[in-house]
Amino acid sequence: MTDTMRRIVLASRPEAAPVAENFRLEEVALPEPEDGEVLVRVEYMSLDPYMRGRMSASKSYATPVEIGETMTAGAVGEVIASRHPDFAPGDKALGMFGWADHGCLPGKQLRKLDPAHGPITTALGVLGMPGITAWYGFNAIGQPKPGETLVVAAATGPVGSMVGQLAKAKGLRVVGIAGGPEKCRLATETFGFDACIDHRAHGDAASLSAALKEACPDGIDIYYENVGGKVLAAVLENMNPFGRIPVCGMIAWYNGASDDDMPLAAAWRSVLTNFLHVEGFIIFNHYDRFGEFVAEVGPKVGAGEIRYLEDVAEGLENAPAAFMAMLTGGNTGKQIVKVS
Amino acid sequence: MTDTMRRIVLASRPEAAPVAENFRLEEVALPEPEDGEVLVRVEYMSLDPYMRGRMSASKSYATPVEIGETMTAGAVGEVIASRHPDFAPGDKALGMFGWADHGCLPGKQLRKLDPAHGPITTALGVLGMPGITAWYGFNAIGQPKPGETLVVAAATGPVGSMVGQLAKAKGLRVVGIAGGPEKCRLATETFGFDACIDHRAHGDAASLSAALKEACPDGIDIYYENVGGKVLAAVLENMNPFGRIPVCGMIAWYNGASDDDMPLAAAWRSVLTNFLHVEGFIIFNHYDRFGEFVAEVGPKVGAGEIRYLEDVAEGLENAPAAFMAMLTGGNTGKQIVKVS
Repeated sequence: MTDTMRRIVLASRPEAAPVAENFRLEEVALPEPEDGEVLVRVEYMSLDPYMRGRMSASKSYATPVEIGETMTAGAVGEVIASRHPDFAPGDKALGMFGWADHGCLPGKQLRKLDPAHGPITTALGVLGMPGITAWYGFNAIGQPKPGETLVVAAATGPVGSMVGQLAKAKGLRVVGIAGGPEKCRLATETFGFDACIDHRAHGDAASLSAALKEACPDGIDIYYENVGGKVLAAVLENMNPFGRIPVCGMIAWYNGASDDDMPLAAAWRSVLTNFLHVEGFIIFNHYDRFGEFVAEVGPKVGAGEIRYLEDVAEGLENAPAAFMAMLTGGNTGKQIVKVS
Repeated sequence: MTDTMRRIVLASRPEAAPVAENFRLEEVALPEPEDGEVLVRVEYMSLDPYMRGRMSASKSYATPVEIGETMTAGAVGEVIASRHPDFAPGDKALGMFGWADHGCLPGKQLRKLDPAHGPITTALGVLGMPGITAWYGFNAIGQPKPGETLVVAAATGPVGSMVGQLAKAKGLRVVGIAGGPEKCRLATETFGFDACIDHRAHGDAASLSAALKEACPDGIDIYYENVGGKVLAAVLENMNPFGRIPVCGMIAWYNGASDDDMPLAAAWRSVLTNFLHVEGFIIFNHYDRFGEFVAEVGPKVGAGEIRYLEDVAEGLENAPAAFMAMLTGGNTGKQIVKVS
């Protein structure tokens, strides 16, 4: 057991897309757990699009990461010291340890992982935050009904692929949007989407809208929104009356708006004339549903009925590069970093 | 009884704001009621912002008025001939008779008015379509709770003034937005708003946003949306987490978007980061609630607990001018035309 640890802090705020200089790797003293705390050696950490929002100083749904502070992240690893009665060395635990190879948190903020539930990385993806994000938005806001049509972008990502599989299981027509023919093939062959549109093959919203119209002959009833940009514009032209749009992200806009975005007036007109229900949410407000989610989805993951893909980068020092690539679609499946 | 009637038809579609040439007054033969139909001599007709939408050919929630077709409108008048068992000459009835001095419709499409419920013009406003629009959006989508803050624009209009009074009665803080100091005075003195902001005194959304921030020290929980434009932009900067936005109109955009509108990305960001529930609706989908609405609100109107203002133009031939003035806020209160 070493007496130092490594972590990556926010060195500066990005102007638009994050660059390497926004991050700094540091070596600091390993903390000792105080009463009630647990020290964990991180094995895998999660990279998720929401982290881009935390790098900006502007008001958001969560406090921004301060300059010099460890970047935020969920992570899983092994308990190496514990002053909390529920945790003992050797236990596996999930917590918000950040971009770091060790973490020390109050035991009540950790979740102990049962090795019988499969690889511990699933707690970062299909059975973790992205999984419940997909499940909650699809069910609670999407209000799906068999025979309806659902569209979701980032279709092979951890949220999109879960939304698609939940929707297929419920009897909906499911159309994905993804970047490139390989991801589109994955969406239909691995995740069972009825169709998948390559947004890179469509230069503007009008072209994408025409492709959606073809792929959704009965229109769109649910658009699970995680990207914004031209996909949103194209979708809004194809929504059915009384459609629902759960909004959990807008990755296309995390680095700023574009000149060719749909005018707000046109979007609002679609909301009004199609009687759309648009609702933003952040899953951290709905973790009271976690038990219900795991009880429903866990067995399906165990039985192979719900599939998932992981994209594992090696080494904490490579987290910034993996994160920047993820924001432009460079990964395939849930982005994870193997820390130790 | 004459054997001709007058009507105003759509002569051409407006490019932006409607102009006089878009309308044409015609004299045609008076129809004779067929079996099940009722012929009515119109006394008052309603002018409402939604009619602007019907003048455009683009897809909307309702079929556009065709060129040469009578402009759509609700109206009240006296039955002068009936081939429907529920109606007799001398009865007062409400129906979609259009911009015309007579109308002939199936009796099942009409509602007989009880003179005991006050002046028949109330069936066009406070106890009619605008009234139930306000009541439904406020309650069903707004989900108001005492102590919350509500903002509504066009505060002295038939919808805005009803929303404000319903909200005050329920214990909310109510802030109106209206055009000019006289309307603002009406909002606070006649309709009991806690405050009213003159949007004409604020040249851009930033200035209006600052005024809203001052008038809503606890933020905005419900924005009853009927205008769009810079008001929407200013409101979205002041919404509270879990806010609700019923969308029933966007009069500022009926003639087209503006260059200085808020970018869609910024609006979407507010929806996401504030967990907003935005929902468009048209009241014609919810007329099953009409009985409930009248039972609740009718007695309050009768008792003077809910106040209303009417702005009556004289003569069918003046309907186009009154309509064009209404779209730019030239009226005060429910716009009605006295037809005969």
